[in-house]
Amino acid sequence: MLITDIARYLLPAFFHSSLLPSSISSPSSKINIVPLPAHSTTGDGSTPLCLSHNFTIYLDEASLRPHVSPKDLVLAIEDTRAQLASLAMTYLSPSHGDEFFPRGDSKCERYLERLDVHMSDYDGSTIFDQAILSVEERPELEAYHLDIPLTGHAKIIAKGPLGAYRALTSFQTLWYTHSSEGEGEGSGRVVYAPFAPYEIDDKPAFGWRAVLLDTSRNYFSVDSIYKILETMSMVKLNVFHWHITDSNSWPLVLTSFPELAREGAYSPKEIYTEQVVEDIISYAGQRGIDVLLEIDTPGHTAAIALSHPEHIACFLSTPYKHFAHQPPAGQLRFANQETTEFTSAILSDVVDLAKSRYLSTGGDEINSNCMLEDKDTKDALTMNGWDLDDALDDFTKKTHATLREKGVTPVVWQEMVLDHRAMPSLTNDTIVDIWVNSKDARMVLDQGYRIVHASADYFYLDCGQSGWITEQGGGPGWCDPLKSWSKMYSFDPFKDVKDDERHLILGGQTSLWAEQTDENNLEPTLWPRAAALAEVFWSGPDSNGKPRSAAKAIGRMHDIRYRMVNRGVRASPLQPHWCALRPDDCVLGA
Amino acid sequence: MLITDIARYLLPAFFHSSLLPSSISSPSSKINIVPLPAHSTTGDGSTPLCLSHNFTIYLDEASLRPHVSPKDLVLAIEDTRAQLASLAMTYLSPSHGDEFFPRGDSKCERYLERLDVHMSDYDGSTIFDQAILSVEERPELEAYHLDIPLTGHAKIIAKGPLGAYRALTSFQTLWYTHSSEGEGEGSGRVVYAPFAPYEIDDKPAFGWRAVLLDTSRNYFSVDSIYKILETMSMVKLNVFHWHITDSNSWPLVLTSFPELAREGAYSPKEIYTEQVVEDIISYAGQRGIDVLLEIDTPGHTAAIALSHPEHIACFLSTPYKHFAHQPPAGQLRFANQETTEFTSAILSDVVDLAKSRYLSTGGDEINSNCMLEDKDTKDALTMNGWDLDDALDDFTKKTHATLREKGVTPVVWQEMVLDHRAMPSLTNDTIVDIWVNSKDARMVLDQGYRIVHASADYFYLDCGQSGWITEQGGGPGWCDPLKSWSKMYSFDPFKDVKDDERHLILGGQTSLWAEQTDENNLEPTLWPRAAALAEVFWSGPDSNGKPRSAAKAIGRMHDIRYRMVNRGVRASPLQPHWCALRPDDCVLGA
Repeated sequence: MLITDIARYLLPAFFHSSLLPSSISSPSSKINIVPLPAHSTTGDGSTPLCLSHNFTIYLDEASLRPHVSPKDLVLAIEDTRAQLASLAMTYLSPSHGDEFFPRGDSKCERYLERLDVHMSDYDGSTIFDQAILSVEERPELEAYHLDIPLTGHAKIIAKGPLGAYRALTSFQTLWYTHSSEGEGEGSGRVVYAPFAPYEIDDKPAFGWRAVLLDTSRNYFSVDSIYKILETMSMVKLNVFHWHITDSNSWPLVLTSFPELAREGAYSPKEIYTEQVVEDIISYAGQRGIDVLLEIDTPGHTAAIALSHPEHIACFLSTPYKHFAHQPPAGQLRFANQETTEFTSAILSDVVDLAKSRYLSTGGDEINSNCMLEDKDTKDALTMNGWDLDDALDDFTKKTHATLREKGVTPVVWQEMVLDHRAMPSLTNDTIVDIWVNSKDARMVLDQGYRIVHASADYFYLDCGQSGWITEQGGGPGWCDPLKSWSKMYSFDPFKDVKDDERHLILGGQTSLWAEQTDENNLEPTLWPRAAALAEVFWSGPDSNGKPRSAAKAIGRMHDIRYRMVNRGVRASPLQPHWCALRPDDCVLGA
Repeated sequence: MLITDIARYLLPAFFHSSLLPSSISSPSSKINIVPLPAHSTTGDGSTPLCLSHNFTIYLDEASLRPHVSPKDLVLAIEDTRAQLASLAMTYLSPSHGDEFFPRGDSKCERYLERLDVHMSDYDGSTIFDQAILSVEERPELEAYHLDIPLTGHAKIIAKGPLGAYRALTSFQTLWYTHSSEGEGEGSGRVVYAPFAPYEIDDKPAFGWRAVLLDTSRNYFSVDSIYKILETMSMVKLNVFHWHITDSNSWPLVLTSFPELAREGAYSPKEIYTEQVVEDIISYAGQRGIDVLLEIDTPGHTAAIALSHPEHIACFLSTPYKHFAHQPPAGQLRFANQETTEFTSAILSDVVDLAKSRYLSTGGDEINSNCMLEDKDTKDALTMNGWDLDDALDDFTKKTHATLREKGVTPVVWQEMVLDHRAMPSLTNDTIVDIWVNSKDARMVLDQGYRIVHASADYFYLDCGQSGWITEQGGGPGWCDPLKSWSKMYSFDPFKDVKDDERHLILGGQTSLWAEQTDENNLEPTLWPRAAALAEVFWSGPDSNGKPRSAAKAIGRMHDIRYRMVNRGVRASPLQPHWCALRPDDCVLGA
């Protein structure tokens, strides 16, 4: 059968999943892909399929003409082959996969020689090109079909390289190694897929599945960010929200404003040059990830005072609690026109640097004492006949205009909508990150904004690290306790959301604020918990519209966690290893 | 002045600290040693002392005759030189130490050429020999005097190699690197001590300062244990409580009982052979650390059933909550004489393997349902006319006799004293680990036992990781929230302790139970928090007898944490780096 015939046969089911035959269900125990594919069927485990030593992956040339191969997809194919060649993952069961090789050897009856990748609607785009399209366009492009039969070639069918890339990621996750000792036939190491044949039809429920990293409170090296992006791609996370600056340090070296990082970075080594940011954006894009840069304004900007004291109110004022949520105090003088222009100029440079259609201008935790006790601000308010909200609206209108002129949509934190008088500057295309509490989503939806679920009560990775302000006996963390993978997993994106508002829910985000995190504890803090967020917003609610069962997911969570560890990611264990081998025995009530 | 003259002059003050001149105080900002030395004086920071390129450390030969050099001390001296030669630690301040080099170069006025190590009462022992002496003997042997003048040689004086080793550790912690660019005189890199001259008289308040590691729920490689021991030695922790076996896995390969690990280890690679245990004990001893092996009995032993089902009651019985605190269920049939003999034989082998004067036999969380519903146990109770406590007393008497015959003192968890009828087998020399709650210490002291403060409400490193039993929405951890360094630091070892009971308080322990920890998150979970425990039990209460001030300690906690990171230990950051450079600005109320 020709690829094109297969495509013709499968594509209707693929792109219109309501047409799928009812026999295709989603067994969670046989498919260990995280996030769980929308639809899948597998074999019963009686016929492991082994990877041929000559296994190859072909990009179907028919799908490319008249275009050239998307070079990042070619790299991803190379990487898939390399990952499988060095695969160290053994099956998680008490017998470590021996159950699939009952004769005590590693002999296979069936071998997979080849995987064909076909793009049905290829227009010359790269993965990167498609990753940075609008959030509404992404799900269709991330969809894919993956067919792994017991005989013949395996096939991937997707519209373009982004979907093909997601399919390659799923494909990788199906394989394990098995070894047996001895010299005879069937001894040695094989790479096998235990539940072949597989047929997977997959498509994300949401187009915005994000990880936020704060690189201001503590610095993270470029290599550590690359590793985050690689691991994000393992679980199909597709937005890297880079909170690059804040009051503690300004590591971003802008060509037009080099003084910001020269004075504001922790050290000359703890910086991100424009070239580095571009490299990170490319590295992300090649892995299907859009980089959302955030320049948090007008609060969280004390570090600017080290080079531009004229733009910052209440810098280092004490007691810090009167002027800021945490030390050091300092906010942009947003009532001051020179400061607004200065901020717009910075944002303009950052937009030029970014490739995304979105940019976050922050807007959280604006402290009014800082402004109202600042002479420069008081003078500006008086001169304009403004109160503070008028000034903020003016600042927002002008700074956001800088984005909109370049076709970029602003993203803001929820306070911009909830903590101030209605601001005409915040038009309804603005995307609002819900962070204080998941209940706050309702009030933002009422105002007609699109939202991202990033609330602390479910998705803040730093909760439970305890209070970090030095205090005798230790203080509580503001959002205790720790948000476990199962807490995240219980989130309902559509709770209290009307049917006609569902399009306003763009997706979700898990956030790593770095007060008590740097490279040393980054990976155990982030992984595998972020994989739970990935599944909530890729796989969506279960067939009843409710959050999926943690008991059904824990086996897959272990599987992806050990895969991460095997790839050198220091992901935390979720349970004793005994439970990872027997997840059903470590469920409440077992 | 000859070393012997200095020793004659200083030793009285050193070994009788009440005789110290009142001018010797303990400034916390100038001495960054953790744990804080008992007494110290420093310079004012105006004259940094630099390490000569020819810097050498001499073991004073006069102190050795007629003995040979303690070989582990010679290695420690070599290591000290090597660590200083590769030192990467910069001073934690906004100017990174430039304040000590006001001319903008790295030029030093004063250089230290030599450190002399003198042992005043050397009897041929090694560090290892002294580390495994009784808990009461340790403080005198860990005491030391360290003198670093601005001119001439620096000197260490201690009774023997253990104290000399502690002094070398303190010595290392005083140095920083400073670099300046350029080619001229004073450019390049220097290693300097900013607050020379230093004079330190130090001695621990408690002889038992422990870290517990559970290697059964998840496995830890030998290298990861070596790294724990190295890092423990940086903060003078001196007991490694190795909870080597439990219900989840039995990684300990005993020559007489190889079947226990063959069947009970997670895999043939996840084991500790007797040779490995001996190597770890030696590695620890050379770093001043006693290894307390724990074979937890009669509970927490399900893994034995895989090779000896005849000795285990209720193996894998469900619902697990009825039979055990966590899955899998299974306990030694302690009413059965064959099982008691089997257990004694195991303990006998472990005592022979150990070098410590102490061994823990566990005794926590014994589940009575498991025993009372076990036919074999019921028969044994009936035959002997026993209730369960009678049987436990008999088991304890016989298994502990195995230890006592070899001169080893048993250590048990608090339930052995508090949760059963008074057991004659538990004589008052038994050491009791308080773990459920710090308040329980009072009841154990009332019975006259010596105790170690290891309570979950202050010292459990796994608290706050959230519940790990799979549960929809996630369950709470049993000992939430996380125990921060400042929580640990606020512990009062003598709370509700009468003056004439103080000798019963042996020290403290921080415990890492490994339900949700393995090598991937080990270091961020353990460090630097365990350093707070180290200081509580080395430095003891402040001059008012109360816990010391966290605000005064945070700068030193940052210093030791960054030193750990510079030595490759993935210790968690305690605050934003901004605060590490300005600890006084991140205190509650600042």
